[in-house]
Amino acid sequence: MATTKVTAGVDLGGTKIQTVVLRDEEMVGSARVPTPQTGDPSDVIDAIVGTIRTSLKAGALADADLGRIGIGTPGEIDARAGAVLLAANVPGFTDRVELGPRVSAAFDGVRVTVDNDVSVGVLGEHRRGAGRPFRNLLGVWVGTGVGGGLVIDGELHDGRGTAGEIGHMVAKPGGRRCSCGRRGCVEAYAGRASMERRARRLAERGHRTSLFRIMRSRGRERLTSGVYATALEGGDRMTQNLIEDATWALGIGLASAQNLLDLEAIIVGGGLGDRLGQPFVDRVVAQMRPHLFVSANPPAVVRTELGDLGGAVGAAVLVGG
Amino acid sequence: MATTKVTAGVDLGGTKIQTVVLRDEEMVGSARVPTPQTGDPSDVIDAIVGTIRTSLKAGALADADLGRIGIGTPGEIDARAGAVLLAANVPGFTDRVELGPRVSAAFDGVRVTVDNDVSVGVLGEHRRGAGRPFRNLLGVWVGTGVGGGLVIDGELHDGRGTAGEIGHMVAKPGGRRCSCGRRGCVEAYAGRASMERRARRLAERGHRTSLFRIMRSRGRERLTSGVYATALEGGDRMTQNLIEDATWALGIGLASAQNLLDLEAIIVGGGLGDRLGQPFVDRVVAQMRPHLFVSANPPAVVRTELGDLGGAVGAAVLVGG
Repeated sequence: MATTKVTAGVDLGGTKIQTVVLRDEEMVGSARVPTPQTGDPSDVIDAIVGTIRTSLKAGALADADLGRIGIGTPGEIDARAGAVLLAANVPGFTDRVELGPRVSAAFDGVRVTVDNDVSVGVLGEHRRGAGRPFRNLLGVWVGTGVGGGLVIDGELHDGRGTAGEIGHMVAKPGGRRCSCGRRGCVEAYAGRASMERRARRLAERGHRTSLFRIMRSRGRERLTSGVYATALEGGDRMTQNLIEDATWALGIGLASAQNLLDLEAIIVGGGLGDRLGQPFVDRVVAQMRPHLFVSANPPAVVRTELGDLGGAVGAAVLVGG
Repeated sequence: MATTKVTAGVDLGGTKIQTVVLRDEEMVGSARVPTPQTGDPSDVIDAIVGTIRTSLKAGALADADLGRIGIGTPGEIDARAGAVLLAANVPGFTDRVELGPRVSAAFDGVRVTVDNDVSVGVLGEHRRGAGRPFRNLLGVWVGTGVGGGLVIDGELHDGRGTAGEIGHMVAKPGGRRCSCGRRGCVEAYAGRASMERRARRLAERGHRTSLFRIMRSRGRERLTSGVYATALEGGDRMTQNLIEDATWALGIGLASAQNLLDLEAIIVGGGLGDRLGQPFVDRVVAQMRPHLFVSANPPAVVRTELGDLGGAVGAAVLVGG
């Protein structure tokens, strides 16, 4: 009796590991765990393997049912080898980690494909989410940084391996310092890390804000998307200004991308994008519109549909799931 | 006895009409005439037909040898109908002109394809010129305006019909007024029309320049690429500044395009780009480099090979020549 093999998709992040198992495009199991913070890559790999097993069990499946595994990871990747060269956000991934081969070994040699986390997230939305109606789109993931992924003629387009860096398009020559060391990148205004640097500097200079009080009350050490959302709901002026700057820079970058590519759609996702939702997307659109060359035919600008499952679903789609 | 049909490519511009005839990818004839300035579209169409006949004769060929015709034209195009809706730079092309059908009628119904002049120019360079080694490239045509054309995975990519507008990527938010009515576009700094507006304004304010003296000495009414080149060779300060601003804006736009697309190559052409040549390209590269996100893997930045024949060759390539 022939049985259809299932596909596992893993979204490896700095704070969580999300895994789904798909059969015939349908999710039959999923699991999520915090990313181990011990600094030992083996712990991360064990956790990935664990989430795959848990997801299989949730679907009443066993290791033998698993056909292929896709993994989306941040950092620099040697896709051919399935290795991660450096992923600063993942504890212990400071040197080359043979991620694919090691996960494969845990499942009796099942084939594992490793790709960029943002790319697979955009792929997930394109094939199973908000991007289904479109063949040419840009996904912009607004989180700690600002990542992006391009779909051209229905396929992920990564150029020579690094296309999609809308976060490092120039929003303002000579403008704010970016995490990448340059000035004026979109990410210097719209990335959560850059926004936090600016908020801390303003607070040190005596500007009032509820951001850090909200952060502490939640036992956080960082300004998370939820902290920004709560501060915004409370009418915090500094947060309003930070979001205004972020949407301004995104508007410029996205308009330039649109004028260059004449896209059908732009999907706004990522931690901050998903959390701030439609009002955030509306402001990005309002900032983008004045810079559109063909103003009569703007792209659809939509939110993600899969939310924080998008990366894992996309990783499964990557390997045929 | 079967004979191979030849292909004609026409580059229709505001000042000249350039035509080539290709057989087996080889140019067997060419002709160039000034674009009739009478304001009657029939005169332009007669001139196009005339250059095709002249090119055929140059190759010892007759109308019956002609297999297909490709035409590159500025302006808004109804590609399906082969019509030009509006081409402000071509005298008389202020209303819809049935360009393709009318040229076809002159050659006993031979098939005519009409496409955007910049797109076919980039196609020409991609298939027969400087772009041959590359599958992913951007052509940036620096002339009266700044146009662009994208080749993705070996094919012209026009999105929904208007991709490639690198001239209207945002170089500086709130910056100089552009011909399109917006502010801070690349073209507002690097397009010859914008540069001339600025030069005239500066001259009115008393800034010294040799530009207008050179222009008059050549019997010109406009600052042509040759006028800029001569002023630059003479060390004219205003021209140096104008070119500095132009390369600065191009550097920002091209870096943003590169960060988004991870291109293999950028081809710099157009009247001004071709005329100012390698020193101009070198300055664009110097301005682009600091903004590249993946600085270790920059694109090749090259000049056109076909020069002012590129558009006509590309138009022929478009129809299989």
